[in-house]
Amino acid sequence: MLTSNSTTSQSADALGETPLNDMANALRALSMDAVEKAKSGHPGMPMGMADVATALFSRFMKIDPSRPDWADRDRFVLSAGHGSMLLYSIHHLLGYADMGMDQIRSFRQPGAITAGHPEHGHTLGVETTTGPLGQGLTTAVGMALAERMLNARFGDDLVDHHTYVIAGDGCLMEGISQEAIDLAGHLKLSKLIVLWDDNGISIDGRTSLSTSTDQLARFAAAGWDALSVDGHAPHAVIDALAEARDSDRPTLIACRTTIGFGAPTKAGTEAVHGAPLGAAEIEGARARLGWNYPPFEVPDHVRAAWAGIAQRGRAAREAWEGRLAASPARTAFTVAMDGELPADFDEKLVAYKKELSATAPSVASRKASEMVLGVVNAATDLTLGGSADLTHSNLTHTKGLVPVTPGNYAGRYLHYGIREHAMAAVMNGLALHRGFIPYGGTFMVFSDYARGAMRLSALMGQRVVYVLTHDSIGLGEDGPTHQPVEHLAMLRATPNLNVFRPADAVETLEAWQLALHAEGTPSVLALSRQNLPTFRTKHAEENLTGYGAYVAKKPKRRRDVTLLATGSEVEIAFKAAELLEARGVDAAIVSMPCWELFEKQSPDYRRAVLGTAPRVGIEAAARLGWDRWIGERGRFVGMTGFGASAPAPALYEQFNITPEAVVDATCELLTCA
Amino acid sequence: MLTSNSTTSQSADALGETPLNDMANALRALSMDAVEKAKSGHPGMPMGMADVATALFSRFMKIDPSRPDWADRDRFVLSAGHGSMLLYSIHHLLGYADMGMDQIRSFRQPGAITAGHPEHGHTLGVETTTGPLGQGLTTAVGMALAERMLNARFGDDLVDHHTYVIAGDGCLMEGISQEAIDLAGHLKLSKLIVLWDDNGISIDGRTSLSTSTDQLARFAAAGWDALSVDGHAPHAVIDALAEARDSDRPTLIACRTTIGFGAPTKAGTEAVHGAPLGAAEIEGARARLGWNYPPFEVPDHVRAAWAGIAQRGRAAREAWEGRLAASPARTAFTVAMDGELPADFDEKLVAYKKELSATAPSVASRKASEMVLGVVNAATDLTLGGSADLTHSNLTHTKGLVPVTPGNYAGRYLHYGIREHAMAAVMNGLALHRGFIPYGGTFMVFSDYARGAMRLSALMGQRVVYVLTHDSIGLGEDGPTHQPVEHLAMLRATPNLNVFRPADAVETLEAWQLALHAEGTPSVLALSRQNLPTFRTKHAEENLTGYGAYVAKKPKRRRDVTLLATGSEVEIAFKAAELLEARGVDAAIVSMPCWELFEKQSPDYRRAVLGTAPRVGIEAAARLGWDRWIGERGRFVGMTGFGASAPAPALYEQFNITPEAVVDATCELLTCA
Repeated sequence: MLTSNSTTSQSADALGETPLNDMANALRALSMDAVEKAKSGHPGMPMGMADVATALFSRFMKIDPSRPDWADRDRFVLSAGHGSMLLYSIHHLLGYADMGMDQIRSFRQPGAITAGHPEHGHTLGVETTTGPLGQGLTTAVGMALAERMLNARFGDDLVDHHTYVIAGDGCLMEGISQEAIDLAGHLKLSKLIVLWDDNGISIDGRTSLSTSTDQLARFAAAGWDALSVDGHAPHAVIDALAEARDSDRPTLIACRTTIGFGAPTKAGTEAVHGAPLGAAEIEGARARLGWNYPPFEVPDHVRAAWAGIAQRGRAAREAWEGRLAASPARTAFTVAMDGELPADFDEKLVAYKKELSATAPSVASRKASEMVLGVVNAATDLTLGGSADLTHSNLTHTKGLVPVTPGNYAGRYLHYGIREHAMAAVMNGLALHRGFIPYGGTFMVFSDYARGAMRLSALMGQRVVYVLTHDSIGLGEDGPTHQPVEHLAMLRATPNLNVFRPADAVETLEAWQLALHAEGTPSVLALSRQNLPTFRTKHAEENLTGYGAYVAKKPKRRRDVTLLATGSEVEIAFKAAELLEARGVDAAIVSMPCWELFEKQSPDYRRAVLGTAPRVGIEAAARLGWDRWIGERGRFVGMTGFGASAPAPALYEQFNITPEAVVDATCELLTCA
Repeated sequence: MLTSNSTTSQSADALGETPLNDMANALRALSMDAVEKAKSGHPGMPMGMADVATALFSRFMKIDPSRPDWADRDRFVLSAGHGSMLLYSIHHLLGYADMGMDQIRSFRQPGAITAGHPEHGHTLGVETTTGPLGQGLTTAVGMALAERMLNARFGDDLVDHHTYVIAGDGCLMEGISQEAIDLAGHLKLSKLIVLWDDNGISIDGRTSLSTSTDQLARFAAAGWDALSVDGHAPHAVIDALAEARDSDRPTLIACRTTIGFGAPTKAGTEAVHGAPLGAAEIEGARARLGWNYPPFEVPDHVRAAWAGIAQRGRAAREAWEGRLAASPARTAFTVAMDGELPADFDEKLVAYKKELSATAPSVASRKASEMVLGVVNAATDLTLGGSADLTHSNLTHTKGLVPVTPGNYAGRYLHYGIREHAMAAVMNGLALHRGFIPYGGTFMVFSDYARGAMRLSALMGQRVVYVLTHDSIGLGEDGPTHQPVEHLAMLRATPNLNVFRPADAVETLEAWQLALHAEGTPSVLALSRQNLPTFRTKHAEENLTGYGAYVAKKPKRRRDVTLLATGSEVEIAFKAAELLEARGVDAAIVSMPCWELFEKQSPDYRRAVLGTAPRVGIEAAARLGWDRWIGERGRFVGMTGFGASAPAPALYEQFNITPEAVVDATCELLTCA
């Protein structure tokens, strides 16, 4: 197995006299030694893909470690995130400021930037958080798409870079990979190049335990070019990469490798995937690889070779900065990459809010969202719409948004196809690349399909907006498979995700305003299919939704009961309050469009809003989480199981989510006339 | 477009003189009329696929509507579940007892069995609930696999049937479809035949808006046979089906159809997908199809032709019953299909529980699960293990479980590959088919990937066991992408799902016992990576986990505080109680392994367990849901954000989930010495 590698070691590289395999062996040694020291981690992939990574970086990668965020850098995504030591070793050798040898030695330890899996925002130059398999590949599709779209806007001088991915067998077995390659092939994202670590091994053993797919044929069927090379023959990999860069399609390069390459007894087996090698095996690997340096030592000639890559990148970045400085599009480009909303953005939104309060439309909140998006998309061109094939249901398209099509990337609307998971991951990629604020629609219940990527939006703190319409049994006849019940709780349980459930058109506008300003937090807009009256008929300059919850109706004299509701159930609270008044009960109504923001208010504000009177919560969803607001003696009017198929009004009756039920619940708590 | 259909109408069918297209037109007419009356629904697919369905049912389907649960029937899965009226029309014409014309006329109305999407358990003969796209296809893989596995056990006389699927473009675009076809192709499930409604239309418009994949090549790459036919030429479909039945691989038949076939102006467009046609279009369709009958009327000759299919099925069923009666395997087969655990099953489990209490092992609950599974898998052969490529981490394999391999289906262990979503849906199919109790493992955080199918386990009430190990930050170094935080809340919010988080080996056994007996409810076992001491050292015959929550440690004199905890945090509660005792505080400890079962206890029991003293909840997870148990003045010790990468003990310190933190929280509530 070492033959091809040994051959390569004889040839000097253009970067200097250092052979590519010395450069690769440095990655191997750092990886196996760091895993050994950590007593945990994954040496197999870094050792297997070191030659491929060296080929890519030495000849092609355009990055400047001293400016990790340089806009026109190539993007490198380690989709097989468990091989994080490969990335950290590369970054160490390239001289990223945060990746000193102390960090390599602290792999997976408290406070280190060398986390078990690469985390965007935690470590310089990590383009996206990976670990959950298939996410990196799909996020990279979003990055490659962003590149083409910005290129269409700003030209080759400012935007012209590649997106490279290292993916493992797991990435290709996860279903999301199909959504990714189908979309990338369709859109002809020719600057996307995937290097597949084709090592035939997964955790349980040989991949032949569970798959027989011909991956080259599969990718070709999706419109990709597909090549296969010996992953331990760097010059063959270089040739394949050159061919891929010339293609007018995205390219898969299957790199046939030996997992744990160099490990004398464990290479080529699952034993080397996810556990330290042990001292004897490491010693054997050093001998076999001809790497005669102690742990955590890299000889100068290898350091110099890797440093040459960084120097090349710095020169490219400086040349690009010259072009940017001379470009008439300079300001526009910078604004786009900074993701800055126009100065008059809020003014326009507030003006429209005033109009909404004045006209008080009775529309579904999904429709209100469309109306607001009309204003938003006219006020900024940062926003990039889309839907997972439910455009006319999610109402995510507004006038003048041209679809992006294969080869024509100037548009502002994406037909993501019936691919919720890819939509979410691609939106992550678009946001991470910078240049856009992506929003995408599906039915709320199908956030189930997108969960894996939605979690990463939150973990990475990306400004991505999920337009989740048909947010309860209120969608009616489509029945329980389409009716979210547990989803509000699921989304609310997720850290760093703002879940908005606006109750009328005004709150919908306010939710959009907050979502678009939330630069470090993704947002969900839970929107109704059914019409809702506008209760916010008195214009407020201030964004009340920003409080998370507020008193929507004050009691007339004293607060006998507080009705807490969100979204479509605020209307029920208003009707219940009327019925209660007739029975001598004075109710306050609290609209709670965003629990997360309410949690962030001062205890005094929260206490004032919730009040001391008994409380009844109303939401056509699972109770989980509501006890925080209604307290131990509170009542909850909502769902206790799955929905059913019937017109919405019949379902609200059937599940007893009605003004009368709220009255009954209230009268259990206090004396009604 | 009507040419091929008109041609077909000239040929008489073997079932009688009734041409196949009259049979198909009856399906079209019932579907469009029912949607029209409901003022909602999807006429396009039933009208487009009526010829294909007629070809399948008239010549091949082996079902007996008078015995919808006959074990050796063919399975038919409408994966494109929005076309439910196709299925209901077929069932009406075949004479299913529950599907009178009143039901067709009540499509999507309150109380009707003709729900918007087909629901298993709600309507006779609906093999699985469909609607979320791709689920039906993948569930069918499980059914086809169950058939082969039972065939391996009981032979052709008792088990020899096909699984047919109608799938739409959406089913094939969803990522789960790749996991399904990869697995089915690998396992050579040759009796699985997928009829793809290749109509080139999705909701947003032409499928060419978002996909360019060559589906035949894609399926071929996964080891399938793949054919393409004119879906409006029934005899061509019949020939293709005959060819598929002869193949030694699963087969995709791409049926080129016109969506809304017959509708004069809307056919072939997205306008016919998901909305009533309108009176004029329906009148035009009647004329165009030559269907001169009023709405909801079917002529006798057409009824007779469909009835012939049912008669053929009845004869087949009776012949099969004869074979069963004569078979020496009769009892074993019946026990398997009934899913009956052996009479001595509980006895064996309780004996092992006694041993566990006596030996009090300090093991991870995933390890305890493996130990318990050793007893379970020896005591019954209903259980069928598996993992999504994490066998040695989930510890789902026990001694003697032979893997299922392509062509050899006698095994009891499935290597599902890196395909969590398919694993869940395949387990649904295995459970629905009957004959097995499937359990499958992955890391808890990757339940994100399986959500779509897990929800259907719950909605359909299937006995499927999810072994979700690495259930908190306690997994350590792999970091936040692998550490579930919100997942317990997500799972607990899901109706009809028992979420067990056992605290020691004894509770783990009890959780397994409950999960295996829960015939109408799926279960999650949330299991630790890290070791946990056994605190249940006093043997109890009774299953205490069955109470959902119980007092694990009584106070010594009076209850000053109640510490509520689950899983790995029960140990922290015990340590905190010791520290509190030193400070003069007498703590009770409540272990809460299953909230859902605790909710089902009497209010008196719940009150007694929770007590009236102040309460502190402890769980290394999001707070959402805990306020129900700790009350308004309670405290919670747990996670407030995502995890981090470091060894587990360091993380518990970092996130302040420690005995000391519990003491501090307690001492905020009451006076400590």
